[in-house]
Amino acid sequence: METDKTVETASEQVVNPWEVSAKDGGKIDYDKLIDQFGCQRLDQSLIDRVQRLTSRQPHVFLRRGVFFAHRDFNEVLDAYERGDKFYLYTGRGPSSEALHLGHLIPFMFTKYLQEAFKVPLVIQLTDDEKCMWKNLSVEESQRLARENAKDIIACGFDVTKTFIFSDFDYVGGAFYKNMVKVAKCVTLNKAMGIFGFSGEDHIGKLSFPPVQAVPSFPSSFPHLFPGKDKLRCLIPCAIDQDPYFRMTRDVAPRLGYSKPALIESSFFPALQGENGKMSASDPNSAIYVTDTAKDIKNKINRYAFSGGQDSIEKHREIGANLEVDIPVKYLSFFLEDDTELEHIKKEYGEGRMLTGEVKKRLTEVLTEMVERHRMARAAVTDEMVDAFMAVRPLPSMFE
Amino acid sequence: METDKTVETASEQVVNPWEVSAKDGGKIDYDKLIDQFGCQRLDQSLIDRVQRLTSRQPHVFLRRGVFFAHRDFNEVLDAYERGDKFYLYTGRGPSSEALHLGHLIPFMFTKYLQEAFKVPLVIQLTDDEKCMWKNLSVEESQRLARENAKDIIACGFDVTKTFIFSDFDYVGGAFYKNMVKVAKCVTLNKAMGIFGFSGEDHIGKLSFPPVQAVPSFPSSFPHLFPGKDKLRCLIPCAIDQDPYFRMTRDVAPRLGYSKPALIESSFFPALQGENGKMSASDPNSAIYVTDTAKDIKNKINRYAFSGGQDSIEKHREIGANLEVDIPVKYLSFFLEDDTELEHIKKEYGEGRMLTGEVKKRLTEVLTEMVERHRMARAAVTDEMVDAFMAVRPLPSMFE
Repeated sequence: METDKTVETASEQVVNPWEVSAKDGGKIDYDKLIDQFGCQRLDQSLIDRVQRLTSRQPHVFLRRGVFFAHRDFNEVLDAYERGDKFYLYTGRGPSSEALHLGHLIPFMFTKYLQEAFKVPLVIQLTDDEKCMWKNLSVEESQRLARENAKDIIACGFDVTKTFIFSDFDYVGGAFYKNMVKVAKCVTLNKAMGIFGFSGEDHIGKLSFPPVQAVPSFPSSFPHLFPGKDKLRCLIPCAIDQDPYFRMTRDVAPRLGYSKPALIESSFFPALQGENGKMSASDPNSAIYVTDTAKDIKNKINRYAFSGGQDSIEKHREIGANLEVDIPVKYLSFFLEDDTELEHIKKEYGEGRMLTGEVKKRLTEVLTEMVERHRMARAAVTDEMVDAFMAVRPLPSMFE
Repeated sequence: METDKTVETASEQVVNPWEVSAKDGGKIDYDKLIDQFGCQRLDQSLIDRVQRLTSRQPHVFLRRGVFFAHRDFNEVLDAYERGDKFYLYTGRGPSSEALHLGHLIPFMFTKYLQEAFKVPLVIQLTDDEKCMWKNLSVEESQRLARENAKDIIACGFDVTKTFIFSDFDYVGGAFYKNMVKVAKCVTLNKAMGIFGFSGEDHIGKLSFPPVQAVPSFPSSFPHLFPGKDKLRCLIPCAIDQDPYFRMTRDVAPRLGYSKPALIESSFFPALQGENGKMSASDPNSAIYVTDTAKDIKNKINRYAFSGGQDSIEKHREIGANLEVDIPVKYLSFFLEDDTELEHIKKEYGEGRMLTGEVKKRLTEVLTEMVERHRMARAAVTDEMVDAFMAVRPLPSMFE
């Protein structure tokens, strides 16, 4: 069976939508992943180009390499430079009520892209996927999708340019026709190879990849982009979603569609250390957007893996190991001030700053961020959710 | 792999939606098929009961054993006797422009059931299936679906009680939710076992069985049967469709739904003889509803396999072999007069009637039937098709 071979070949590190595991429980080797997946590194010249084209400082996640890989992002920028439009597509599988910080990353970044490039955006809530994978009821999946939509909206998207949809609500019509067209192009062997499915998996899993594929094609949204079937798609996502879009890009030319471009992030590490993604099953592995200031402080102090030394003397002497230090890692995601971050890394790395001080600063940064999110979310009304989810034309022209 | 075992076990005769082949190229053994599939024989007491409940003579296809097997048809009649409702569900894969007589059989029978029991009916046009299996474009599949709908409507269905839908148009909403619920309950191994799929098949095929399954559940049609989620479903179909509904019946209780009941027909034989179904790829294997009187006469005279003897002398002496004689077989489907049919069988079987005379009578019967169909179809307007395909409540009460 092709599956077994593929899984065996990739046994050193496995990254797919359901499993992220590094070699021997260590760190994910992102350089190797780029080779393994066949995507491209997002280098400084591309980041400089984004700065030039958008006339603003690139997002922290670009400057600091959180989004580190891409597929054809350069082509999207070429076209943008010529005045050609594109649209953004991202999504979320609504499997839990409360989002953690890792969940926010693609949305924070997508909001930046939408603002910087002034482009329309579709956000897919894969409630059908979660219903099938997590064995949630249809109703519960849809409820979670709507709850998660509020958190997504709280990230600050522009309602005039953003369409949020639930698969259970939206699958049908042109979207379903594209699902069928995609499904025709993917053999069972191929799907098992790409996604690692087995004979014991249910056929719902086999049916799902086309659902996640087709928002890459503007013709799936005839009401959103009427007459804009050539609009190029750019997908910001974590790199574990790459298998879906490898499949999509493989199939697209056979359907006469453009391949979606991708811009892909590394994983946000668990509090306990950088070996994989955070786990919803262990609430102490992550900071949630629902955590109180006290929760945040406790979690950081008790669980955030420190690269500091065992004794103050030793720490003063050799400094912290920044490579494994979670507080520094988290600050590099969320502390916007480059100068302050460099200062902390230098002082901490050379032993003049202690773990407790770094954790204190991180606690401040995250508490403020979570509090801001909480307030923004509290202001999201049901009417706003309805407005984001209303099927209507989106402006595909630049303002 | 479970598939191989299943295929091997069933290697004597294979009957599934894509293949019908008897042992050693002979006749399908329907008794054995009943055992193989685990369905029930439709016996005389059930037929008598239908007569009693509907106060009319049972359809020729019941009286003559064309519909010969069932699943829980007795339960549907029990409920009907108590005053409980049911609805009919049948369908067609629109793979060709012109229907042949074999295609009409389930529709002729379904029309009778609708009239006799005064019940609502849904007719699924699986344009998505044909797009995937026959590699037709979406547009061509939908065009064929609409053309076929005209032939179906020409069979005389009651527009106030009949909803015809194309999957490409209708999949979505509650229908899609039920597809996901069904898909969750069927493992890939199981689907490969039931349907004989292989790793080289595309995932669209694996995704399709839930599409054919869910019209068995009234909750898939919330606009048709509002508040009637308990309405029982009865499916008239050829027995090659049984695998879909074995799967559906297996899954239904796990979803809290009633199992659909089935009433299943044998196959209409090819002109060349009774080993399987007619083939669209050989136009001389079947009489089409578009054939002219001359076509019909020619086809019957040239291709209809005769059970008559080689010489008139021998024929007069030992008579025709009615078991293999196609003209007699066809007459037993379409000659409504029981007395005349018995007369022909007796005279022909005992050598007093010659093949030519039987073929002549068959030509008259089919020419009249095809001519009647042609006229009815010519009267079907686009507005009528729209009316049958409009999503609207159907009366689920008895008149």
